[in-house]
Amino acid sequence: MTIGFETWAKDGAARRGRLTLAHGTIETPAFMPVGTAATVKAMRPESVAETGAEILLGNTYHLMLRPTAERIAELGGLHRFMNWNKPILTDSGGFQVMSLAGRRKLDKDGVTFQSHIDGSKHRLTPERSIEIQHLLGSDITMAFDECTPHPATHEQAADSMRLSMKWAARSKEAFTDRPGHTLFGIVQGSVYDDLRRESVEALTGIGFEGYAVGGLAVGEGQEEMFRVLEATTPHLPDDAPRYLMGVGKPGDLVGAVTRGIDMFDCVLPSRSGRTGQAQTRRGPVNLRNARHAADPRPLDADCACPACTGYSRAYLHHLQKADEILGPMLLTWHNLHYYQELMAGLRGAVEAGTLADFAAAFAEQQAAGDIPAL
Amino acid sequence: MTIGFETWAKDGAARRGRLTLAHGTIETPAFMPVGTAATVKAMRPESVAETGAEILLGNTYHLMLRPTAERIAELGGLHRFMNWNKPILTDSGGFQVMSLAGRRKLDKDGVTFQSHIDGSKHRLTPERSIEIQHLLGSDITMAFDECTPHPATHEQAADSMRLSMKWAARSKEAFTDRPGHTLFGIVQGSVYDDLRRESVEALTGIGFEGYAVGGLAVGEGQEEMFRVLEATTPHLPDDAPRYLMGVGKPGDLVGAVTRGIDMFDCVLPSRSGRTGQAQTRRGPVNLRNARHAADPRPLDADCACPACTGYSRAYLHHLQKADEILGPMLLTWHNLHYYQELMAGLRGAVEAGTLADFAAAFAEQQAAGDIPAL
Repeated sequence: MTIGFETWAKDGAARRGRLTLAHGTIETPAFMPVGTAATVKAMRPESVAETGAEILLGNTYHLMLRPTAERIAELGGLHRFMNWNKPILTDSGGFQVMSLAGRRKLDKDGVTFQSHIDGSKHRLTPERSIEIQHLLGSDITMAFDECTPHPATHEQAADSMRLSMKWAARSKEAFTDRPGHTLFGIVQGSVYDDLRRESVEALTGIGFEGYAVGGLAVGEGQEEMFRVLEATTPHLPDDAPRYLMGVGKPGDLVGAVTRGIDMFDCVLPSRSGRTGQAQTRRGPVNLRNARHAADPRPLDADCACPACTGYSRAYLHHLQKADEILGPMLLTWHNLHYYQELMAGLRGAVEAGTLADFAAAFAEQQAAGDIPAL
Repeated sequence: MTIGFETWAKDGAARRGRLTLAHGTIETPAFMPVGTAATVKAMRPESVAETGAEILLGNTYHLMLRPTAERIAELGGLHRFMNWNKPILTDSGGFQVMSLAGRRKLDKDGVTFQSHIDGSKHRLTPERSIEIQHLLGSDITMAFDECTPHPATHEQAADSMRLSMKWAARSKEAFTDRPGHTLFGIVQGSVYDDLRRESVEALTGIGFEGYAVGGLAVGEGQEEMFRVLEATTPHLPDDAPRYLMGVGKPGDLVGAVTRGIDMFDCVLPSRSGRTGQAQTRRGPVNLRNARHAADPRPLDADCACPACTGYSRAYLHHLQKADEILGPMLLTWHNLHYYQELMAGLRGAVEAGTLADFAAAFAEQQAAGDIPAL
């Protein structure tokens, strides 16, 4: 092992653990804020750390185009570039390249695509993706894969998954072992249990120190996602961290931890914060709504984040209406704070063996909804 | 006196002092960042305080339209609304209303105008302006005046100034004395020494605890501005603070302190920070310029702000190119930090009696320009 991963408590399928990487340790289950273009949008990295985040996600696709991985390497790597000295996980670029409808061409060797910034032509292969992630200096590198679109027939899903498994082997081959740095494989197979199982077997055959579940939260719905997790996580090695990619809403996190997931990333808390939507223990709250305009109460009286301790709903509403940058700044902070608090609650519940109670109380609070208008 | 103002050192016309208001003390000469719509754009108030700012400016025009002064009063006043517990100075709304070319109508009693937000009709008079500033809870209220356009004939400037003097008397009449809160009069008279003198006499006749110099930095140029200051400040009472409105560039601040000014406000550091321009001891630096793209050096190696201690020029350039919110956040912080550092330097120099040396060293550094590209 080049990294450390220990678990010391279980509650059903859920695990309480700690991941040790080159740039620090991560208490699991963990949520990773997304720092797409070498910044968590509208947040200073010191503030991201204040929310409790111990690891960030960086995007290979965005960084390879601007400022380029080579430029970041010359400047000392992504940690130094963006002033974040804790661990970083980078995606492989595969997911975002596949999303470039009409501007990318897949072959068995990789993907050729046009930049969304200037239309210039680029190519990603497993080898090039791993090289880029090395240049960035990622603590956790992700294998290059094709995220199977949804819906897909069994045949489409099988072909796509098997291509990803070949690319996973090539990613492993291209990866250079260094202490504290590791490579995760990605399970594909769409909603088909047999394909998910086949993918797990292929990946464990290659051998990784961590396993991601990909191709979910792409439109299949929460129920189906949970079903696929139940058909997948039991087959993953018990001693390796499990990462559910691109997930999700607060309820997704609770349900996926219950089903054995250790790590998450999602743009939801930061993206929704930039459009006036707060994620709270009582569900989403849209601060643009006129019902907040004269409300002197905090967004969440029980939240310790700067948005909730310093300001009224009326002020947060005003920032939205006036299109002030402080609006995204405060709501992104709140949302990331809430996500980290939720993860801390889940970790405590797993450790205490009270996860079912925690999940029930969580669901009840979310269902109750926001406090009534004054 | 309802406020305190003491000076204990002079260097030529420059003064070193301390202003004591309801919400705290201000070391003078002082620079006031502008918090137009109840926020210094792209800054948390805690961060504004970290730069060293001890007082902010709020805009009557913007706040009366949105969220309205009555709403802010219901919510406990502007300090509480925007989470800034240090002093606040509010302008009278006059300057911004006069700028609404084609959408405002001046009469001897006040101004009727259309909102830039929704076209709705509003009216400001001396009495209404003072009422709004009372509702906001300003530590320093500004008299309602007409900022004379530039250029103006002697006759136009005289008529405009005399109207402002009538409004100053009405502002004084409307103002309610409360400990720690005060009203400043505003000297007008365009570039005409005799009119500036007449304006000073009118205002001192009415009696104020502080005097602003208005109608400058409106296109007359730095040399002419300094000339007008030299013809004005010697006639102002020695025991009252003097505030040069809407000024300015770093060199303007140095020159105006030398000519006896104690307080400044300007959007330049915050506005230019949002468009990629840094204000530094070596003059302005445009971070959008490609010459910074691979530069590992800090913006200013001698600056202690987060932008300079945490990041390379290459990263600051990247944020600009990627249009990331962190760009305005970091550059606004840097610019406000630099302005406060410049004011601290000026205060120290006045106290030490070395203002001429300070101004010479400042001018030399600014003239030297930015460090050469790598």
